[in-house]
Amino acid sequence: MSAPERVWVNGREAGAVSALDRGLQYGDGLFETLACVDGRLRLLGVHLERLSAGCARLGIAIPDIGALRRELEAAASGAPRAVVKLIVTRGAARARGYAPAGAEEASRIVVRYPWPEADRTLGDTGVRVRTAALRLGENPALAGLKHCNRLEQVLARREWSDPTIAEALLYGSSGALVSGTMSNVFAVRGAALYTPRLDRCGVAGIMRRTVLELAARLGILCTEAHLAPEEVAGFEELFLTNALIGIHPVRELDGRALTAGPTTRRLQAGLSALLAEAADA
Amino acid sequence: MSAPERVWVNGREAGAVSALDRGLQYGDGLFETLACVDGRLRLLGVHLERLSAGCARLGIAIPDIGALRRELEAAASGAPRAVVKLIVTRGAARARGYAPAGAEEASRIVVRYPWPEADRTLGDTGVRVRTAALRLGENPALAGLKHCNRLEQVLARREWSDPTIAEALLYGSSGALVSGTMSNVFAVRGAALYTPRLDRCGVAGIMRRTVLELAARLGILCTEAHLAPEEVAGFEELFLTNALIGIHPVRELDGRALTAGPTTRRLQAGLSALLAEAADA
Repeated sequence: MSAPERVWVNGREAGAVSALDRGLQYGDGLFETLACVDGRLRLLGVHLERLSAGCARLGIAIPDIGALRRELEAAASGAPRAVVKLIVTRGAARARGYAPAGAEEASRIVVRYPWPEADRTLGDTGVRVRTAALRLGENPALAGLKHCNRLEQVLARREWSDPTIAEALLYGSSGALVSGTMSNVFAVRGAALYTPRLDRCGVAGIMRRTVLELAARLGILCTEAHLAPEEVAGFEELFLTNALIGIHPVRELDGRALTAGPTTRRLQAGLSALLAEAADA
Repeated sequence: MSAPERVWVNGREAGAVSALDRGLQYGDGLFETLACVDGRLRLLGVHLERLSAGCARLGIAIPDIGALRRELEAAASGAPRAVVKLIVTRGAARARGYAPAGAEEASRIVVRYPWPEADRTLGDTGVRVRTAALRLGENPALAGLKHCNRLEQVLARREWSDPTIAEALLYGSSGALVSGTMSNVFAVRGAALYTPRLDRCGVAGIMRRTVLELAARLGILCTEAHLAPEEVAGFEELFLTNALIGIHPVRELDGRALTAGPTTRRLQAGLSALLAEAADA
């Protein structure tokens, strides 16, 4: 487990936020989790783009993107490898109640964590995954957003304590596969690639988007679909994505063995090349 | 609008909480909104009971209830009429990620607000109400809890700005009436009383529970039901409840006029007597 190294609030090193912050009161905010590699924040522009779009959807006054970028880069500097988490909330409440006053000033919380000590071979060997009992509520108004209402993920993560299980797959209340608790999921059948449609719930992950673009570039057809449990049971390959792990193949789902096949391996190789390219740019 | 008068964090007058608090990170907490009348917190025991049950459901280590009661009473003392909001979160995160370490110490945030300057005649005249476009996601694991994941309520409250509209009715994704954004709802047809079943989503309000008990005592049959929009359109009376307003009849829903009839008035009179009784006890 990784305790935080440093914390900044609204641009200054500090450990505390207003008790009236709407992020605390209502989860009224968004977050980004960034990989810092060799002192550089991976896919920073894409993260900031998603954050801006999320703020627009929630009606949160987006902080100045240039300043935010500089704050994040300062947080990452001097850390050869780290995780940087950014939370942007609607800011301190001006009054009681759900209605935003409209004049709130967004709060920015930046936390730097050490890079997780996870087994570096998981990209090769794959991870063990279970299916969560909890089903996600569905609300198109929130679908896709990486917002701070994450009690469902907390409850799903509390369903297991076996440290050899890396992740749980979550289905939505209408029965379709959505994601893991902290990752997106892709599935392979033959030459075709599938990933859950996120129009009802789920987070539109940065690595999910990157893999979708990569697949298109490599000529691998990927379909965003509502996938029922029976379909998931029929897939030959599954893999998980997020900004930190990149692509992790699933080697076991609820006790059933799976193997990373050529499509997963091709995407992994392509992703490595793409991220190396981006780091050099 | 009412800015806060005083704020306490973990028993001490303070304005800030840890930026690592899981309440801020994930909305990983619960809250209570209490009416303070003549320096006394109305229905305090029932609020604390609900809080305890909520903590048990989320696996949050409940703070000592005796100490919490004293903190709340101290916050209320010297305020003839006020609103006291209590937030209990799982506490500061020990590590990154959704999984609770299990060793977190719950945070307590107490905020006292001035009593809202709302029209005191609304209990007589009734309020204007609209139907929200947003539909609530449904998750039985969270249903009934007054938890801190309230983005849906924030978005629903952003749908209107007309100050003469007091509340919006919310339906769940499967089509049944749930509640207002900050109130529960009851409906009357003939001699029968109905209120939405909260098994899929919604907050099991303290005043809702009080009215249910009162109705039973008065011999008014109340059914908890899944109510479709067509049924709601057929009700002769509607009223809203919460810990601050008690019972407010709806005098207009989406432009349709409604009148508080004998059942609503009988429950209002009964509630006044019950609350006066409780205050004297």
